[in-house]
This record gives sequence, C-alpha cells and structure tokens, in this order.
Amino acid sequence: MIAEKTLTTSEVAARFNELAKEGNWNKIQDELFAKNAVSIEPPDSPGLKSVEGLAAIKQKGKDFENTVEEMHGGYSSDPIVTGNHFAVAMGMEATMKGVGRTKMDEIALYEVKNGKIVKEQFFY
Amino acid sequence: MIAEKTLTTSEVAARFNELAKEGNWNKIQDELFAKNAVSIEPPDSPGLKSVEGLAAIKQKGKDFENTVEEMHGGYSSDPIVTGNHFAVAMGMEATMKGVGRTKMDEIALYEVKNGKIVKEQFFY
Repeated sequence: MIAEKTLTTSEVAARFNELAKEGNWNKIQDELFAKNAVSIEPPDSPGLKSVEGLAAIKQKGKDFENTVEEMHGGYSSDPIVTGNHFAVAMGMEATMKGVGRTKMDEIALYEVKNGKIVKEQFFY
Repeated sequence: MIAEKTLTTSEVAARFNELAKEGNWNKIQDELFAKNAVSIEPPDSPGLKSVEGLAAIKQKGKDFENTVEEMHGGYSSDPIVTGNHFAVAMGMEATMKGVGRTKMDEIALYEVKNGKIVKEQFFY
C-alpha cells in the first residue's frame, strides 16, 4: 500500500498552472478536484449556473463546450497563492453558437483543503 | 476645468500595487475607491464584518488597527488583472491584543467600475 502524499496549496497551484498552460482542464479536474467540489458563478451570470460535485462540474464544462462554435484562443496567468487559496486571471476568445465572436475574461479563485480543490469561484 | 482621466482596470491595479508595496492603504482608499464601495468578508469570518461605503470601510480599518498590539510585517503580491477585476495575495503577521501572535493570509479581489474600486472581497 502506498500512502498518497497530501499536496500543499502551493503544490496544487503549481500543478494547476502546469496543466492550465497546456489547456488540460480535464486532467485538472480529475487530478486536483475533490469529488464534492463546488463551482460558483456570479449570482447575476447570464448563462452559467453554480453546481455542486465533480460530476456536475464536468457536465457544466461539456454544456459550455456545446455552445462554442469555434475556439480562437485562451490564456491562464501564473497563480497568486496564499494560505489555502490561489487565483489566476483567465480568459478566452470564441465564436459562440448564435451569438458570434465573444471575449471572456475572469478571475478564477480556488480553495484547497486536504490537498484537493474544494471550491472554484469565478468573477467577471 | 481639468477633465479627470478615467483609469483602466490595469492602471488602477498598477497604482494599487505601487501604494500597497509602500503599505499606504489610506491613500489606496482615498485615491482609488469609489465613495459607495463595498467590502465583503467571508460569511463565516470570526471577527470582521462586510460593510458598505468608503466611510464604513475606513472605520473597519481603524477598528482592526485597534485590535493590533504590534505589527510584525506584511506583504502584498503583484496583482493578476483581467476584465474589470484584479486580485492580490496579501497577509500580515501581528500580535493581536488578548490573542497573541497571529499570521493572516488572504486573497483580496477588487472590482473596478469607471476607474474606481467599487468592491473589495477577501478570501481566507
């Protein structure tokens, strides 16, 4: 039996950054998210809703992908890290089905507990 | 009459960073905050409360200072900036009256509108 090492917040942020720079969001969720993680959108968000649980978070990602006609590019900044939180500036430019070309920018904030992301929260 | 230039979010973040590195929080509030700005603490914060309006934000700062016996040091990271938000990692180490030496770390998130900070929100 191999004991799994519990990552520090800095280690989670570093691994997140490595995977985000590759655009590997699926691996971020599989490797770094807690099964009961929550995802919080702004209360006045026109489209996306807050959800609870990794399965619902993954479904939200798929639902969003289905609204995209063409992805033109994206970015994710190096994280700022302190205590049990880290945050990045991220965004993308995409042509959305029925909407047209759209630029999206947000601060994404992550809370870490026992080496896993338990909350993601978006500000835009 | 001199028309005042409306700062972009990046310009507000840069000026914030300059003043934060000097620890000049009063000047940050006087120069960069909107009169009706709000300050949001975590709902489960043991001590600090959310307040509305620059006067109440300044009073909250004074109230906090009164709980500090001795300040040992603090930091404020370079900001991450995108859209109408920026965020920094910040913290301090202080001896609090009746509590003892305490280390505090937080992500501070700022929303900018018409060249002024309209919301500060802390995560710890």
